Amino acid sequence: MSGVVTLLTDFGTRDPFVGLMKGVLAALAPAARPIDLTHELPPQDVAAGAFWLRQSVPYFPRGTVHLAVVDPGVGTNRRAVAFEARGQLFVGPDNGLFTDVLPEASAVHVLDPARLREVLRAALPDARPTSATFHGRDVFSPAAALLARGEPLTALGPELPEGRDGLQTLGERPPRVEVIDRFGNLITNVPWRAEDGPARVSIRGRTLAWVRTYGEAPFGACVALLGSFGTVEIAVREGSAAETLGVGPREPVEILAGS
Amino acid sequence: MSGVVTLLTDFGTRDPFVGLMKGVLAALAPAARPIDLTHELPPQDVAAGAFWLRQSVPYFPRGTVHLAVVDPGVGTNRRAVAFEARGQLFVGPDNGLFTDVLPEASAVHVLDPARLREVLRAALPDARPTSATFHGRDVFSPAAALLARGEPLTALGPELPEGRDGLQTLGERPPRVEVIDRFGNLITNVPWRAEDGPARVSIRGRTLAWVRTYGEAPFGACVALLGSFGTVEIAVREGSAAETLGVGPREPVEILAGS
Amino acid sequence: MSGVVTLLTDFGTRDPFVGLMKGVLAALAPAARPIDLTHELPPQDVAAGAFWLRQSVPYFPRGTVHLAVVDPGVGTNRRAVAFEARGQLFVGPDNGLFTDVLPEASAVHVLDPARLREVLRAALPDARPTSATFHGRDVFSPAAALLARGEPLTALGPELPEGRDGLQTLGERPPRVEVIDRFGNLITNVPWRAEDGPARVSIRGRTLAWVRTYGEAPFGACVALLGSFGTVEIAVREGSAAETLGVGPREPVEILAGS
Repeated sequence: MSGVVTLLTDFGTRDPFVGLMKGVLAALAPAARPIDLTHELPPQDVAAGAFWLRQSVPYFPRGTVHLAVVDPGVGTNRRAVAFEARGQLFVGPDNGLFTDVLPEASAVHVLDPARLREVLRAALPDARPTSATFHGRDVFSPAAALLARGEPLTALGPELPEGRDGLQTLGERPPRVEVIDRFGNLITNVPWRAEDGPARVSIRGRTLAWVRTYGEAPFGACVALLGSFGTVEIAVREGSAAETLGVGPREPVEILAGS
Repeated sequence: MSGVVTLLTDFGTRDPFVGLMKGVLAALAPAARPIDLTHELPPQDVAAGAFWLRQSVPYFPRGTVHLAVVDPGVGTNRRAVAFEARGQLFVGPDNGLFTDVLPEASAVHVLDPARLREVLRAALPDARPTSATFHGRDVFSPAAALLARGEPLTALGPELPEGRDGLQTLGERPPRVEVIDRFGNLITNVPWRAEDGPARVSIRGRTLAWVRTYGEAPFGACVALLGSFGTVEIAVREGSAAETLGVGPREPVEILAGS
Repeated sequence: MSGVVTLLTDFGTRDPFVGLMKGVLAALAPAARPIDLTHELPPQDVAAGAFWLRQSVPYFPRGTVHLAVVDPGVGTNRRAVAFEARGQLFVGPDNGLFTDVLPEASAVHVLDPARLREVLRAALPDARPTSATFHGRDVFSPAAALLARGEPLTALGPELPEGRDGLQTLGERPPRVEVIDRFGNLITNVPWRAEDGPARVSIRGRTLAWVRTYGEAPFGACVALLGSFGTVEIAVREGSAAETLGVGPREPVEILAGS
């Protein structure tokens, strides 16, 4: 256990929702150290959550617990789950949020059943008032707290029922803009490496020049580059590519090797 | 002592005000663990602060110190206070912010005087530059730090003067919308429990259907439900009730048992 | 070492950039305790960063590591630096951000060379994917982590090359509005003390009344006062001085002793 618990939600920071989740963590796992990834995900954008969660894993210590709640289905019968992968632990709703941290083959049957559990409210310490609508506080935080204090996955609930085929995953996602950062840069889901050389990137019918850093771009020009998350990015120097191109998340891109 | 210190303010996060408060905590109580409740309270909205503070207590460990600063009267002769209630400790301005965490009978004379102290700047460790206007950093944080490191309330200042009748409390608050969350849900101050069954909720002349979860509501319909804070809430599925009804904080509601 | 690591950036909190920096800290320095100063600095506003950094130092414990990233030159050949001053440690880009925490004489040759090092990526623990554009995560956080766990400055890289004259500093800054806080108060860079008495403050051709606290100002009037950061501030009671005066950062002010 590293004791680190990351939090990734679409709850915002205007209300004390996240603070209450940390209160539950502090009460059940006094040595846990919460770290906010973000709470400003676009509401109910499961794919954006999946993308950022995947980006986060390599930078956190072994045994980190990732508590992720983007949960359009709260209050329905979608499952709550907890599992181990990549040497780290994950807790949240079973709605595709964990697609990108699953082992390569992706289908969860490759996860040892002992490493994947349904999380049952009844298995967790009693919450004070428990709600139908705030599972971040009442289900996922207590579950993360137990893991953070070293209890095994088996403490959280049963194996997945026979015949069910593992975690939900997001379907095929074509090359596209996956998230837009605060500066208006378009971060795609297309992996790239420095040694791949320049890519030929098209979006909305425009083909973009490839640069190595923002500083190489002419002011105001829309360019493509290898972003800091290991995927192709589209940027405007000292401007917003999202505004310049009038583009939002999920916009298709075409990316080919060679400039 | 749990070592946990919550922070609840209307300071926002754009400026490093809250960071400086945490610096003071770290300097005076190195083992303290700050947890943000929120810093985005509507400016000077003491009633919203009181509401959220009350919601927070049940989820935090015994001995938590709650440092709350919504302080329209900073620089005037309003008192700074610290007290113990519900097994936790509270520090902040005496302006009604603590109304909802006081013992049921509410008037503070029920608090043992040893559990309620005026906080005097002179009793605290010397602050570097001390200001007339930033008591969050210069008065309340040092006081919270002393409590977090286990010093008794009596270290912070004298008993309240004879003849004064305890802490300020907010007056009678009729059934109303108390806070509006980031999603536009209207959270009322009317306590409700699952076993109370459906309530009959009226606002602005409309009577609303009662549902158990958001998912039961037709899209776009304005409904009432038992919210995750144990009070009646008004919501629009995948929309904002505040916008749909054109309603702000303090809007009266009428809530009766039985649908 | 206090173990405290402050973070000051213009990255915002919408994306998990800051969370990833804390992940790197947690991985390399498990006992480090991150404290956010702010991440909402106006993009690329190095002077605002310098101002707030200077305000923060007095309130943090000895040995605190300040990790500051406002870095318009990322990806160019601007240097990364780390140094010790005022009993605390600083890590960030060499672009003037540290001007106000340098010893009085300001030119850095007064810093013992052992207390000032260039930070070289090659001297740091291997980052997983390392980028050309996110030095906050890939260079500055690992460097801060090493300092937070007690390694000496010499571990981060070489002395500055002979013949270079120390850290970059911001040029002469005339009396002006340095930052604007969330309430629209104009915080100037002109130091003032209570014992200096009232100042005579002019801005945009208006001379302002001096008050001791906000509460002394007539509603709606624009006044000057000694702010909580030891400099002159300009405020409108229950209003925004920035809006009332139509003024932004860098607006010149004239401030004389005596009212």
